[in-house]
Amino acid sequence: MLIVQKFGGTSVGDLERIQNVANRVSETKKAGHDVVVVVSAMSGETNKLVEYAEHFSKTPTRAELDMLLSSGERVTASLLAIALNELGFDAVSMTGRRAGIVTDTLHTKARIEGIDPTTMNEALKEGKIIVVAGFQGITPDGRVTTLGRGGSDLSAVAIAGAIKADLCEIYTDVDGIYTTDPRIEPKAKKLDMISYDEMLELASLGAKILQNRSVELAKKLNVNLVTRTSFSNEEGTLITKEENIMEKPLVSGIALDKNQARVSLMGVIDRPGIASEIFNALALNDVNIDMIIQNKAHDNNTNIDFTVAKGDLLDAKNVVDKFIQSGDIKADSYNEDICKVSIVGVGMKSHTGVAAKAFTTMAENNININMISTSEIKVSMVIEEKYAELAVRGLHEAYELDK
Amino acid sequence: MLIVQKFGGTSVGDLERIQNVANRVSETKKAGHDVVVVVSAMSGETNKLVEYAEHFSKTPTRAELDMLLSSGERVTASLLAIALNELGFDAVSMTGRRAGIVTDTLHTKARIEGIDPTTMNEALKEGKIIVVAGFQGITPDGRVTTLGRGGSDLSAVAIAGAIKADLCEIYTDVDGIYTTDPRIEPKAKKLDMISYDEMLELASLGAKILQNRSVELAKKLNVNLVTRTSFSNEEGTLITKEENIMEKPLVSGIALDKNQARVSLMGVIDRPGIASEIFNALALNDVNIDMIIQNKAHDNNTNIDFTVAKGDLLDAKNVVDKFIQSGDIKADSYNEDICKVSIVGVGMKSHTGVAAKAFTTMAENNININMISTSEIKVSMVIEEKYAELAVRGLHEAYELDK
Repeated sequence: MLIVQKFGGTSVGDLERIQNVANRVSETKKAGHDVVVVVSAMSGETNKLVEYAEHFSKTPTRAELDMLLSSGERVTASLLAIALNELGFDAVSMTGRRAGIVTDTLHTKARIEGIDPTTMNEALKEGKIIVVAGFQGITPDGRVTTLGRGGSDLSAVAIAGAIKADLCEIYTDVDGIYTTDPRIEPKAKKLDMISYDEMLELASLGAKILQNRSVELAKKLNVNLVTRTSFSNEEGTLITKEENIMEKPLVSGIALDKNQARVSLMGVIDRPGIASEIFNALALNDVNIDMIIQNKAHDNNTNIDFTVAKGDLLDAKNVVDKFIQSGDIKADSYNEDICKVSIVGVGMKSHTGVAAKAFTTMAENNININMISTSEIKVSMVIEEKYAELAVRGLHEAYELDK
Repeated sequence: MLIVQKFGGTSVGDLERIQNVANRVSETKKAGHDVVVVVSAMSGETNKLVEYAEHFSKTPTRAELDMLLSSGERVTASLLAIALNELGFDAVSMTGRRAGIVTDTLHTKARIEGIDPTTMNEALKEGKIIVVAGFQGITPDGRVTTLGRGGSDLSAVAIAGAIKADLCEIYTDVDGIYTTDPRIEPKAKKLDMISYDEMLELASLGAKILQNRSVELAKKLNVNLVTRTSFSNEEGTLITKEENIMEKPLVSGIALDKNQARVSLMGVIDRPGIASEIFNALALNDVNIDMIIQNKAHDNNTNIDFTVAKGDLLDAKNVVDKFIQSGDIKADSYNEDICKVSIVGVGMKSHTGVAAKAFTTMAENNININMISTSEIKVSMVIEEKYAELAVRGLHEAYELDK
């Protein structure tokens, strides 16, 4: 098999851990596989460099930040190649440039536009282990860029797609995707497989193992993604296309997002386009809206409720205030003591009654549901925050996820 | 003017010093000059990275070392560009690659083969300050290389040649070239100017301010080189072609080299080619020979004396031992308590009696001269090490270098 293995900052956090990574990579190679390794900077290095930059400027030039930050991954990549050489393997490190990763020109959060895998393919043909500095690429005119948060995962997935790897393993400090957060429900089980879409829902609902950008790219490039831990030999969780999953579970996991706040607008004036005005104003102020509920009241006034991330609440309030001053909204109220519990599963597509069971479970636990939103493979419910763990455990049991 | 300014590791040793460099560069720019800055890694960084590499391997792959070590200069270059931007200047950092520096493929001690200054010239035309990561280039097929010891000086000189700079200023922690080592002769004076050839002689004779590779390159590319300190505004010393120096001093400086040892071979067999055999054997064992004296003795046997660097003495002895065992040499002796004092000056070419004055000075100070070697612009004398300082001060006074 041709395998891409990506190791994040904690997995290469010091020289001992880099040696461990070298040992693991060499085991994979010895088992007869071809390997491309993608590495992050040693943990703490990137922050140190950012602090250096901020010593000189509160707003360092983004292109210069990229020049600066891209050095951390070079260090890890070359050290790992040296360690692999010492173990007797023919290993070669490559920058993002040499790996052929071309991005747009949005420095510090560039998007990968394409990969020319020629140099990597040649090295693989020669039996070499390739160690790529993650998180970086170059603009079409050759300046170095970085890919923003989670950038090394993106590098790994994009490379796996470009060289048509059989697997792209993302090594972190957690050993896979669980049916729910094991800190809340100790009976949570690690999933062997999950579809891209389920993973996307879980990630956007608060499971922080993989960023959505990486999963979306894996889905687009049809890359088989595995998340596993670098600290043991535990098998991880395969994230793949739905067709590859034989037994489709009704529900794959329960996600909990406590970073939610509710905004309630009462007495919104009855004028065509007023909702559009309000949400455009919020968007212009970078307030991300999650759920929206609109009710026509008896007095012909409208009530609008929506949820935002807690960090966006102040910005949202500032926008709402203007509509209150102009008289378009009569009153507002805010509630930070809420959370969102979601059940996710591709099986929902073909089974009825999945949502009903969720609502029944809430009722049985005397939990009031404030808002509901559904998609093809997910049901989300906003409830009082104090019921969060109760709801997660109840749903986990109801859908027999511990079995 | 178009000025290249190179700052070494101690000049950019911490964030405060990088800020000082930014201030200095900005003064140059404000004075109406165009500036290209070349920087080394922050002092200690390169050693730290080498230690990292040696944690994994006693013989790390050279190409990987280059990938690793080239990261240090990137950090300084981007930080300095950020600091200059913050001061309101349009500054851009460039790697060796972006600056167009192409080298051969001798990793860790590559030689510059050429520079394509297109990108630099464009940036200069736009009024930008360019900050180049020194010490590095790329092979013709695009792998990063480093230039070995003194590599950032070489980068600066090569760039100055390629962009036809008026001046190439090398900033170090000493403020210029002195008539002799001020620690030995406090009356030593800083030279305003010195020719390339004199500088080459002084450097090879132990003045450690500039490496010969850099001076040779400056001579070849006709680059006006200035050494000065980054810790004050003192003017430095201009190293330029002889034609540019109006008043040619008889003697420019006195150099002292204590890193010398003398090897004496007694009773070398009288056979054609024996000297060639001995010196070839020494060369094969990487023993660098400096001076050689050969005397035909009365009994038809030959004595050969030569000097080597102290560090090469053991290797030399091993080579000599074999000739003693084969009977080609009767006896050997070694003396580490010697030194070499040299007077250097382009004026010697057209003046007679310069060497004679040196010998007279030695005689007046009761110093016995063991060996003598001369070139067009230099007279070197091997003497007992204990007379080193006495000889230097005597010569300094005799040639009126304190005037």
